[in-house]
Amino acid sequence: MINPHYGNIPPSYLFSEVAARVSAYQDAHPDERVLRLGIGDVTRPLAPAVVDALHDAVAEQASGESFRGYGPEQGYAFLRDAIVAGEYAPIGTAIAADEIFVGDGSKTDTAGVQELFAADATIAVSDPVYPVYVDSNALAGRLGEFVDGRWEQLTYLECTAENGYVPALPEAPVDLVYLCSPNNPTGTSLSRADLERWVAWARENNAIILFDVAYRAFVTDPTVPRSIYEIEGADEVAIEFGSFSKTAGFTGLRCSWTVVPKALTRDGASLHAMWSRRHATKFNGTPYIVQRGAEAVYSEAGREQVQADIDYYLRNAGLIRDALRGAGIDTVGGVDSPYVWFRCPAGLDSWAFFDVLLNEAQVVGTPGVGFGPAGEDHFRLSAFGTYEDTLEAVARISSLVPTLHSTTLIRSES
Amino acid sequence: MINPHYGNIPPSYLFSEVAARVSAYQDAHPDERVLRLGIGDVTRPLAPAVVDALHDAVAEQASGESFRGYGPEQGYAFLRDAIVAGEYAPIGTAIAADEIFVGDGSKTDTAGVQELFAADATIAVSDPVYPVYVDSNALAGRLGEFVDGRWEQLTYLECTAENGYVPALPEAPVDLVYLCSPNNPTGTSLSRADLERWVAWARENNAIILFDVAYRAFVTDPTVPRSIYEIEGADEVAIEFGSFSKTAGFTGLRCSWTVVPKALTRDGASLHAMWSRRHATKFNGTPYIVQRGAEAVYSEAGREQVQADIDYYLRNAGLIRDALRGAGIDTVGGVDSPYVWFRCPAGLDSWAFFDVLLNEAQVVGTPGVGFGPAGEDHFRLSAFGTYEDTLEAVARISSLVPTLHSTTLIRSES
Repeated sequence: MINPHYGNIPPSYLFSEVAARVSAYQDAHPDERVLRLGIGDVTRPLAPAVVDALHDAVAEQASGESFRGYGPEQGYAFLRDAIVAGEYAPIGTAIAADEIFVGDGSKTDTAGVQELFAADATIAVSDPVYPVYVDSNALAGRLGEFVDGRWEQLTYLECTAENGYVPALPEAPVDLVYLCSPNNPTGTSLSRADLERWVAWARENNAIILFDVAYRAFVTDPTVPRSIYEIEGADEVAIEFGSFSKTAGFTGLRCSWTVVPKALTRDGASLHAMWSRRHATKFNGTPYIVQRGAEAVYSEAGREQVQADIDYYLRNAGLIRDALRGAGIDTVGGVDSPYVWFRCPAGLDSWAFFDVLLNEAQVVGTPGVGFGPAGEDHFRLSAFGTYEDTLEAVARISSLVPTLHSTTLIRSES
Repeated sequence: MINPHYGNIPPSYLFSEVAARVSAYQDAHPDERVLRLGIGDVTRPLAPAVVDALHDAVAEQASGESFRGYGPEQGYAFLRDAIVAGEYAPIGTAIAADEIFVGDGSKTDTAGVQELFAADATIAVSDPVYPVYVDSNALAGRLGEFVDGRWEQLTYLECTAENGYVPALPEAPVDLVYLCSPNNPTGTSLSRADLERWVAWARENNAIILFDVAYRAFVTDPTVPRSIYEIEGADEVAIEFGSFSKTAGFTGLRCSWTVVPKALTRDGASLHAMWSRRHATKFNGTPYIVQRGAEAVYSEAGREQVQADIDYYLRNAGLIRDALRGAGIDTVGGVDSPYVWFRCPAGLDSWAFFDVLLNEAQVVGTPGVGFGPAGEDHFRLSAFGTYEDTLEAVARISSLVPTLHSTTLIRSES
């Protein structure tokens, strides 16, 4: 009677394992100051415009005249309109407000979208990848068995230094491809030419692209697309996932959106109608007060405040990138992205480097192997700490890395 | 590539259809004052203690020192502890804080729980029933085809006047049974003897009971169980769903809990570990500020304020019950429950009565057939309106019902 696929999945979720190791270290060394550049959680407080909107909305909920109970499961019109005006109209895409579905987080949305597809739908992901895409399909039984760190029925599109961290098109047809740009974990972005290639491929192969733009606010390069709908014809082949988590520090407040264009149909079914049905059946909407907070991100004050936080994190990203490069490590990301990605120094594998970094420098990062087999021997550092902590962390890393090189040298000579 | 089961399910969700008909009526009759005793949404504003806690938590999120980002996916310890102390310890059950999982609503939780079970798990529901239990399994493909208003592979446990609205034990074994007490939509409760019978049956048959106590705060009769865990041995056979929506007016704020006891195992798997895994993989937690609001429900002031709202709604329930009985209609519910349930007068079916009530009395109720085949010819009225609206609505109903009787009489004589 039990879903057998829960038994196939490795027992510990990446970030839970990171948290457990950090907690064990901190318990054993209560006086050490551990700096966290691991889990991609923000540290800047909510923007004042968002805080004001939240207080106002709470006050509305305190009075019988202005109280709001159940809202529309797909989101309030005021927020769907604000997302279109703030995110899609400025980049010239024709997404309509009723193609936006407000959710409680991109984790929920990207984990849930697979329910719209058949049990035998075939899946490809870029590798390394945000684990939720993979795990949600594994729990639904689409990926077969997990053997030697790989799912038997999953197509891995390797992103390595050799291909500039740009996933190649699948060699055999698949139904669904998850892409994320700017990418978590590599911090790299897909160019317009890359996306045109993907959209053309999806159109030819009747595939659907599940496109995650959680980090779109970090794009500063005007040539880098912020939405897949900047590519003509994408509305017939793509679902897009956006989030307020990293843009506006909503990791604890929880708000996201999904775009399902009405033009997207398969097997005679409207994906828009299906996703709407799923929302109505399985979800009762994002809290009203949170939707008011999200709306305030698009006010004039909100935009400026949120942009200042993005700039703050991008400055951190620059510090991390420069320090690693200064220590002789090749990096990608950290431009148009809060993440910096690199091969672990001194031939260490990613959990070994995690432990060295934690034990020797008291810095927490994220082991690349947690993001997939191509992440083995790689590592992710996040720019979401405070400026002061990031400065201190890069100083410690800059001191540590040369000792790792020399240790390796001594080892290999002995 | 598409999930074929979306195509099997009737196109419109009950409450969406109600909303559409009301909206069409209101558009055509903009001057009529429509009174809503339909969708079970609350109207009392949030309790002052909850409002204060929300403001305080928003203020915390406005400062870098007290800001909280991602929380534990299973919920903050402060709220899990408060739920145990406020809900489970007082009734003598041994539920531990780490058996409580905080969610964003019982709709999400009850719709999601089926994912823990195999694709061929067999299901029984009481009939009439909250549609989410059925629809979530239909979308997952467990119920076969929908033919003549019934799912081919679903066991319906009829609750009618004949059996006192108490579901009979299934005649053939099933894996999962959804029960709700106090019941939505009938307003009836299962007694201790009823629940003992169910727990014994589940233990004998290796079945799991999915027990919804969203309305437990309305129980005034001290002999009626408020939790299935009041029955010995239930922790090995039951998952329980609780909600702040109706207890504390959280329909727009969104907070709930699920109890998965560690003693509950099947096929060698721990349901507790599976649900914890699902939360970690597919959910990023209920907003911090909302969890602080929920915690405040259990403060001394919060308890008193929330109880006053429950009493307010129970007074409405009494008005509705008395008016219907005064008009010669047999009712159940309305005691220990905000819902009153009855057979439609004058031989009308439930959508016909819905339309008559809307068009002739401008009162919105919920057609019983929307809750399942045994709801045909039945109707639900909700006590969640304001006292003034409820008074006015029952006056209109008291005037309308006798005219329906005489119309029927004239028709049958002609």
